Amino acid sequence: MRRTIPATVPWTDGTFPPTPGRPDEFTAGPARALSYAQSRQQNTLTELIQFARFPSISADPGHAQDVAACARWLAARLRSAGLYRVRVIPTRGHPVVTGEWRNAPGRPTLLVYGHYDVQPPGPAAQWTTPPFTPLLRDGSLYGRGTADDKGPILAHVTAMESHLRATGRLPVNVVCVFEGEEEIGGPHLAAFLAGFAPARAADVAVVSDTPMRRTGVPTLITGLRGELTAQLRVRRPGRDLHAGHFGGAVPNPVEAACAIVAGLHDHTGRVTIPGFYDRMLPATMGERAHARRVAPTDAEILRAAGAPASWGERGFSLYERATMRPALVVNGIGGSGVSQAARAVIPAEAVVELNLRLVPRQRPEEVAGLLRAWLARTIAQVVPPGIRVTVTFGQRVPPVLIPAGHPAMAAAARALESAFGAAPVLMRSGGSISAVASLNELGIPLVLMGYSLPSDRIHAANERFSLANFQAGIAASILFYTEMARLDGDH
Amino acid sequence: MRRTIPATVPWTDGTFPPTPGRPDEFTAGPARALSYAQSRQQNTLTELIQFARFPSISADPGHAQDVAACARWLAARLRSAGLYRVRVIPTRGHPVVTGEWRNAPGRPTLLVYGHYDVQPPGPAAQWTTPPFTPLLRDGSLYGRGTADDKGPILAHVTAMESHLRATGRLPVNVVCVFEGEEEIGGPHLAAFLAGFAPARAADVAVVSDTPMRRTGVPTLITGLRGELTAQLRVRRPGRDLHAGHFGGAVPNPVEAACAIVAGLHDHTGRVTIPGFYDRMLPATMGERAHARRVAPTDAEILRAAGAPASWGERGFSLYERATMRPALVVNGIGGSGVSQAARAVIPAEAVVELNLRLVPRQRPEEVAGLLRAWLARTIAQVVPPGIRVTVTFGQRVPPVLIPAGHPAMAAAARALESAFGAAPVLMRSGGSISAVASLNELGIPLVLMGYSLPSDRIHAANERFSLANFQAGIAASILFYTEMARLDGDH
Repeated sequence: MRRTIPATVPWTDGTFPPTPGRPDEFTAGPARALSYAQSRQQNTLTELIQFARFPSISADPGHAQDVAACARWLAARLRSAGLYRVRVIPTRGHPVVTGEWRNAPGRPTLLVYGHYDVQPPGPAAQWTTPPFTPLLRDGSLYGRGTADDKGPILAHVTAMESHLRATGRLPVNVVCVFEGEEEIGGPHLAAFLAGFAPARAADVAVVSDTPMRRTGVPTLITGLRGELTAQLRVRRPGRDLHAGHFGGAVPNPVEAACAIVAGLHDHTGRVTIPGFYDRMLPATMGERAHARRVAPTDAEILRAAGAPASWGERGFSLYERATMRPALVVNGIGGSGVSQAARAVIPAEAVVELNLRLVPRQRPEEVAGLLRAWLARTIAQVVPPGIRVTVTFGQRVPPVLIPAGHPAMAAAARALESAFGAAPVLMRSGGSISAVASLNELGIPLVLMGYSLPSDRIHAANERFSLANFQAGIAASILFYTEMARLDGDH
Repeated sequence: MRRTIPATVPWTDGTFPPTPGRPDEFTAGPARALSYAQSRQQNTLTELIQFARFPSISADPGHAQDVAACARWLAARLRSAGLYRVRVIPTRGHPVVTGEWRNAPGRPTLLVYGHYDVQPPGPAAQWTTPPFTPLLRDGSLYGRGTADDKGPILAHVTAMESHLRATGRLPVNVVCVFEGEEEIGGPHLAAFLAGFAPARAADVAVVSDTPMRRTGVPTLITGLRGELTAQLRVRRPGRDLHAGHFGGAVPNPVEAACAIVAGLHDHTGRVTIPGFYDRMLPATMGERAHARRVAPTDAEILRAAGAPASWGERGFSLYERATMRPALVVNGIGGSGVSQAARAVIPAEAVVELNLRLVPRQRPEEVAGLLRAWLARTIAQVVPPGIRVTVTFGQRVPPVLIPAGHPAMAAAARALESAFGAAPVLMRSGGSISAVASLNELGIPLVLMGYSLPSDRIHAANERFSLANFQAGIAASILFYTEMARLDGDH
């Protein structure tokens, strides 16, 4: 049953309403919970070390048992925190771990989403210490998954435990949904949510799987880009041919693929697919002005990319290009395989991998149709007879726009400001989180408040998670649950 | 010391002068040699089976010992045939096997070139019988290297042995040069030839490493295309970037590489590099007319390629496009690696492998300069700032044009007609043989008369060599040595 929470208000200038007067329950309770969390900091670190030891690599079938063991560990941790109906629920892939505490009748229900699977560690040589032997160094815990997303998950679980141990109750109802397939695009989560009534009944979902702007600057994410992936196969029937015996006489799929790719953008960096920009909702002047004040500058983004020059749509900052504007990225191309070039062939096939990032109101299915139509025209113009092009679509993640004026955002802002000592900034992310899109499609209002830093090297070697942010994240979570309770119409 | 052989005459219409009157030495001698070869057919087959058992795969360092063992076997075979100064001469790569018989003072010296290394077998599953267990089936010996080039080498060695055993002598002086690195582009042969005086003194070189037009139609090759390979590396400094976090804001080397490749040909199939066609020597009307009569038709070439449609320069048949016209082939392209596309990155690097086939008067170094100049202009036009392109050149094999009117060609034509029962056709090959180019650069007149068939699947699975062609090749070689002796000015 959906709770009544005051209606969303439009985008403001990024400031939040002042804290309303605080009845006693909303001051003494969280204070005791914060004190409890403080007293067991050492245990919390030990738990994160245990959690991060599991090589729960969802992309690697050889690690399926590790993913399962990690799920069981997390379920045990939820039970010891005081949640009930804790379950490890199988899917057609890796399991979902759920837990509930719903003994606050009349209060909102909060869905806490996170993921316990991790990215593959990549080349071992790039790691200073082994990826699955978490080690504390210079105030951060180093290890795969510490920041993405095991640390932030544990911050929430510890926050729940702190309320429960310190006061015997949680200020709101809670449903935890911890996924084991986020790093492989979450292929089974939408179906899981459709069949899991406690999640669908949530009033708000909170997700701590996005980075902060920087150390000391907490961040609320107001939008994620959607994602559409497509694979083009460009084929000449038959086999690879000898470049000497046939060179100059038969069509080459690699050249055809390049001709297609070369037409995807015009010289100003705009995507040439007709209609691509038609449906999108442009960012408001207010949001763009806020971004100019708080978002990374072009120089910061280039430094983060290690790139000497920018590229893309004129008239937009790099932050805007990478978050508020849609993009079409060629992920990869392969033809024959460069490693086999010594064979001196005219390849029979080339493959192009496209990754489109979509912004609000662009629908993956609609953009897929536009791409198909563009391809048909382009093939007629640039692909020679005797070559066939087929397109297959993969990921389809809708974009997410989170109204900054939703009361849950104000609640999160107050909690973050108390915990981190600074008001949060509002920013969009250029990334896509399939689970967040699924929750958004279910109509559940979202709060994306993450505790990791841009410098935590998620997905790369030497991933780490700042212990200061871990503790501040626990405090922010404790306070957020309390602030959410205050949104109840009765107060 | 170079022998005097009548000067080359210009291209004729592909017919050869009639056989001059035959003194006794030139009839009784070869007849006895042919009869000897006939009598030991079974031994010859056994020897080819032994020879083809060696996995002398030059491209695979793991097979270096097999290449060396194969060289020793071949040297032993040359000794047993009656040659002397047989040596296995080390190079910086695989060894060269040489042997000589130079007891015919006043007669021409013939260099017999071949290669005893083989292509890698490729996927085992595609072979009906194991690649290095030669088996006789339907009149052909199946196995890697049987046609390319072990069978044709053994045809020559058997022909020499037949002369020596039947008559005690060879009609001409002979120097054998059998390479172990042909399939990897012959990186050390030019240097070897520069230091091997007996080879440099040859009057004519004969090479049996090209296919016949078809069964029953012997073929003399009048040209090989040259080869120039180039690798383009297209790089953005830094690492692969997250397509979500940076998509739309930084330049993509894969798109830049595609833009370069897309400009290599115009819509009529011509290479756009300025000056590319300027230096080349066009085929004569006579040669083109001969080709219309004897060369494969467009339909035959498409059938051989398994391709549904042709491509390339207008105004030329497919045979002409693939042999008499230069070509630029994109062998391969790689960016990020399609297999890693799930990582959803903007790759930091793309690699393009180019393979240019050159025709007479085009020089690899000069074409490399033209390509460099074209690249500089193209980069300025289509590659965005922040991306660097470098080019590295690899193979540089000059083209070869063999005057059809050279007396050695007439000698070969008479030998082939006697052995195969049909006059040879003259054809160019679109391929490149580095050793042939090296011999040509040394000014040694060439005869390219091969014994394999287009259907022998060289470089592919189920390679085979027709026993009928093996025996006819032995006969043709026996007769060719005799015909070469007749070219001596004294007769």
